Amino acid sequence: MTINTKKWLLKKRPEGLVKNTDFQLVDEALPELKEGEILIQNEYLSVDPTQRMWLNDAPGYLPPIQIDEVIRSGGMGRVIESKNENFQVGVLVNGFVNWQTHFVTDGKGFSVIPEMLPIPTMLNVLGLTGITAYFGLLDIGNPKEGDTVLVSGASGATGSVVAQIAKIKGCNVIGIAGGEEKCSWLADCGIDHVIDYKNSNPRSELQKIATSGIDIYFDNIGGPLLETVLNMINLNARIVICGAISNYISEDMPVGPRNLTNLIIQRARMEGFLVLDYLNRQDEAIQDLSKWLMEGKIKHQEDIQEGIENCPETLNRLFTGKNIGKQILKI
Amino acid sequence: MTINTKKWLLKKRPEGLVKNTDFQLVDEALPELKEGEILIQNEYLSVDPTQRMWLNDAPGYLPPIQIDEVIRSGGMGRVIESKNENFQVGVLVNGFVNWQTHFVTDGKGFSVIPEMLPIPTMLNVLGLTGITAYFGLLDIGNPKEGDTVLVSGASGATGSVVAQIAKIKGCNVIGIAGGEEKCSWLADCGIDHVIDYKNSNPRSELQKIATSGIDIYFDNIGGPLLETVLNMINLNARIVICGAISNYISEDMPVGPRNLTNLIIQRARMEGFLVLDYLNRQDEAIQDLSKWLMEGKIKHQEDIQEGIENCPETLNRLFTGKNIGKQILKI
Repeated sequence: MTINTKKWLLKKRPEGLVKNTDFQLVDEALPELKEGEILIQNEYLSVDPTQRMWLNDAPGYLPPIQIDEVIRSGGMGRVIESKNENFQVGVLVNGFVNWQTHFVTDGKGFSVIPEMLPIPTMLNVLGLTGITAYFGLLDIGNPKEGDTVLVSGASGATGSVVAQIAKIKGCNVIGIAGGEEKCSWLADCGIDHVIDYKNSNPRSELQKIATSGIDIYFDNIGGPLLETVLNMINLNARIVICGAISNYISEDMPVGPRNLTNLIIQRARMEGFLVLDYLNRQDEAIQDLSKWLMEGKIKHQEDIQEGIENCPETLNRLFTGKNIGKQILKI
Repeated sequence: MTINTKKWLLKKRPEGLVKNTDFQLVDEALPELKEGEILIQNEYLSVDPTQRMWLNDAPGYLPPIQIDEVIRSGGMGRVIESKNENFQVGVLVNGFVNWQTHFVTDGKGFSVIPEMLPIPTMLNVLGLTGITAYFGLLDIGNPKEGDTVLVSGASGATGSVVAQIAKIKGCNVIGIAGGEEKCSWLADCGIDHVIDYKNSNPRSELQKIATSGIDIYFDNIGGPLLETVLNMINLNARIVICGAISNYISEDMPVGPRNLTNLIIQRARMEGFLVLDYLNRQDEAIQDLSKWLMEGKIKHQEDIQEGIENCPETLNRLFTGKNIGKQILKI
């Protein structure tokens, strides 16, 4: 059979929020499968802040997406035709499925996923965002019972899991998010203190709440709060640099923290990490995260948009604060 | 016998470089020794950038020096009278001897030092500056053979030892210093590349020299070079924040690095430390440093000023770039 795919190609480098005109949605016939190949029909895309970085012509941990290339995206799809014995028709696969409805691949880089939970949940808590939260907090942050843990972007996919794992580990957790709905959800998740940066001054709120200082700052946002936090860190504090969503769409360079000397005074550490370095240990994370999910210790939300034509708009939701929890696009 | 001491008290918080009028040099009689006490005559003061920080009314790893208090300073003195069996008359002691000619103490916090080497050398390579270099580079920086190590303030007491230990460990070492005399001395020490920031653009020089990136940045200076370095770090780079001499006398807040996101891309770490946390392991450092000194693998220079009346002026030498190597004041 001949299958057509719809796919989004990059046409020009976006500035700030993406526009549909930065891309082109093309419709093209896929080739017949060769021996060893499979045909995948995408079901759900994982929509992540890091994708916006890949659209810039700047060095990163993965090469920038080139003009006329399909937009790179994590997600899950189903094998609907197979000439590869490792992938039976009907199985669900996980990997870089990209902004497209269908595609042909030799299967390298894709893994078959047992369908234990709804796909959006798997892409969220058990997917790269959950695994990011797990290793970022536990491996880089190294939380101890009683530590005060501050999480920025706390209602996002990564932040909300970080905040809840910190609670599981016996920490005092402060989450920062924007707007009443997000903050009220975080309170429902059992986070000790929630700061609504849209309706308060996060700096003065933080000074009121974190009276015994901050042991771990898990930063998903980047930006000026880091300077405030550096003035509040405790001895041997850990600052986990996970994301800098506030910078990804800004054309100006962000302002840097002027008080790094506090890292000396408090013998503190600031460290960046990428989940890609932990893929060989992902089973460890998935095992704990599944257990906590089953026990009801990790609550989650997915914001599910629909339709391949809405890819660009859905990406923007991450930067306009529209999503709560994991941003997903159902194809 | 009644002994008079001359000592410098803090009279007002200095702004920028210190002035003699920020202090008062008083001459007073010392009390008779009580049981358990010793009388110390100071011989050499260790003059260190961190002392300038102690003069500010700002939180730090040690409390600020208060108005009317004597100026805190490391150094070595000789016991000239003793009512304490742990300290015989004539022995040399090390500790916070402060800006004064003589003082009485119960001996707590002071250790007796065997006179193996000239005192200025002991205060330099085998003193807190050498030990800072040792643990900062080896413990926090964790150098591997072949790493490219960048050292700012490389002709200073700490920097010059860091650069030479890095050479001993088989690294490719780039040192930054100001002026021909300092740079030529660093070249004599066997440092691979020396950048004279007074006679070149350190940023473009660095880009020409460190073509395979930077694995360790040992920062003694603080300031804008960090941003340049963050754009050049390799995977798993380590940035050791040891000092920020460029900020200590500035009244303006320094500019912070705007590209901390590179810590994520390169999975890199920035960490502050204080030698005070390593005092229980100082024998380890002193053993290696002595051996390297004997083997001629660590060259050193001391800039020795003289006279208690010159304490303030000698401190300023660190901030006006006058000293090469360790700044010492002979009482």
